[in-house]
Amino acid sequence: MKEDKRADVWFTEMHSQDICQSFRVSGTPFHGESPYQTIDVIENPQFGRMLIHDGLVMLAENNQYIYGEMISHVPLFTHPNPERVLVIGGGDGGTVGEVLKHPEVTEIDVVEIDAMVVETARKYLPRIAKAFDNPKVRLKFEDGAQFVEKVRDRYDVAIVDSTDPIGFAAVLFQRPFFEHLHAALREDGLVAAQCESPFFHESTIRETVSSLRKLFPGVKLYLAHIPVYPGGMWAFVLASKIYDPEKDFQRNRYDELHLPLQYYNHQIHHGAFCLPTFVEKIEGGL
Amino acid sequence: MKEDKRADVWFTEMHSQDICQSFRVSGTPFHGESPYQTIDVIENPQFGRMLIHDGLVMLAENNQYIYGEMISHVPLFTHPNPERVLVIGGGDGGTVGEVLKHPEVTEIDVVEIDAMVVETARKYLPRIAKAFDNPKVRLKFEDGAQFVEKVRDRYDVAIVDSTDPIGFAAVLFQRPFFEHLHAALREDGLVAAQCESPFFHESTIRETVSSLRKLFPGVKLYLAHIPVYPGGMWAFVLASKIYDPEKDFQRNRYDELHLPLQYYNHQIHHGAFCLPTFVEKIEGGL
Repeated sequence: MKEDKRADVWFTEMHSQDICQSFRVSGTPFHGESPYQTIDVIENPQFGRMLIHDGLVMLAENNQYIYGEMISHVPLFTHPNPERVLVIGGGDGGTVGEVLKHPEVTEIDVVEIDAMVVETARKYLPRIAKAFDNPKVRLKFEDGAQFVEKVRDRYDVAIVDSTDPIGFAAVLFQRPFFEHLHAALREDGLVAAQCESPFFHESTIRETVSSLRKLFPGVKLYLAHIPVYPGGMWAFVLASKIYDPEKDFQRNRYDELHLPLQYYNHQIHHGAFCLPTFVEKIEGGL
Repeated sequence: MKEDKRADVWFTEMHSQDICQSFRVSGTPFHGESPYQTIDVIENPQFGRMLIHDGLVMLAENNQYIYGEMISHVPLFTHPNPERVLVIGGGDGGTVGEVLKHPEVTEIDVVEIDAMVVETARKYLPRIAKAFDNPKVRLKFEDGAQFVEKVRDRYDVAIVDSTDPIGFAAVLFQRPFFEHLHAALREDGLVAAQCESPFFHESTIRETVSSLRKLFPGVKLYLAHIPVYPGGMWAFVLASKIYDPEKDFQRNRYDELHLPLQYYNHQIHHGAFCLPTFVEKIEGGL
């Protein structure tokens, strides 16, 4: 057998100065520079195509469902009748694809600042980006923080599917954005947001929870296992005006819909809110 | 300021052919070859000292508590009166340290095949290995699979704190070992075992659960977030003759003991058994 002498190519993401994760690269189908960020698509033999923004992994094709399901179904099965949904970010389409699985949802506004993310996903991650073709979806290429300033009392559920709080996305983790988002929600609205890693970004989580608690009476962290993110443990936050994700879980609708999902289920809906003690302390501001 | 020109040293663990995690190395205090494996201790600025067997991370000083708490307190708060505990492997002392937090436990037999693991931990991880100095602990340097062949009807709880199922530890994931272990437990005994990663070792989990189900009426997987292990998601299995970890959770004893833990708590005791759908399928043999 002929020896394989191809160059051994790896992509490395630094999780901190001292810890990193690397993925073998079997192809580099796309590299681009948008006005906002550098965007790469690489191929990994195990996890499939991976979308990378500014050197940080956003998703891997073969396990993107975990993030998409957890940021969507937890809020959508907490609200009793989610009709109007706002997605801030989410330009790859993975979150929108999960939201569309709820027939109650009549309209989804997706506010993605960077058109190149959507173009890239349509071309290189078509199975995920096809969600944008659904007529319920209105795609707006705008700054999410500015968009929410113009809207009042409109959405049942908002989902903040942002990149990391560095550069242009930092405003999406701050108090003024949350104030406008609160106003953009109906009187019984709720919001779910990705909230970084308890192992690597403790202060981001603490500050996000603290800002949201000043506005929403119910704010809870929940967790998912995401193998492409730092430490494999990812936090989300659910901030709600009225409904409690645990007490108000819409079990009947969950049972009736019988969605074919790979991570989220009725046990996970509760289990994700069972926090390890060190995460409880971060949530509690300790 | 003088530029730091020290060599940039990293330790890399391959999680598969195509994915790896790397840790910056600020010191390499120990390297040794035992009759069973290669043992290294390295220092990482973020996670502290790390114990490495045959190139695979066993523990990191700063988050070892997650593994130790989850492999110990889940079975020990399932059994109503755990007096005699058997630990197979566990030569670093982390698991024994957690077991000792239960005052009901009167004796702990630790059966570690490799004396060099204990020597290394005593010297380089003394905070963790100090558990071995407790008079309740009997340390035996023997093959765990052979040890359980000689014991009958003795232990309330067994904990299989093994290395990965490669080489000498492979027998600890196989049917004959589980049969002897079943016989070594009292009539209401139970066992917890580490069971690898659902993302990377699906067949190991499926086969371990299947073997245990032929012997124990109650077999359940549970999960923890362990940032130094592949994918950050680690599975454990609890196999029980009578008690169910969820229905029989010893809430009163848990409340009375009020242990100062960092990961495990009464919510995690239940939440850890809430499995993502793809893990439920592995558990179910699908």
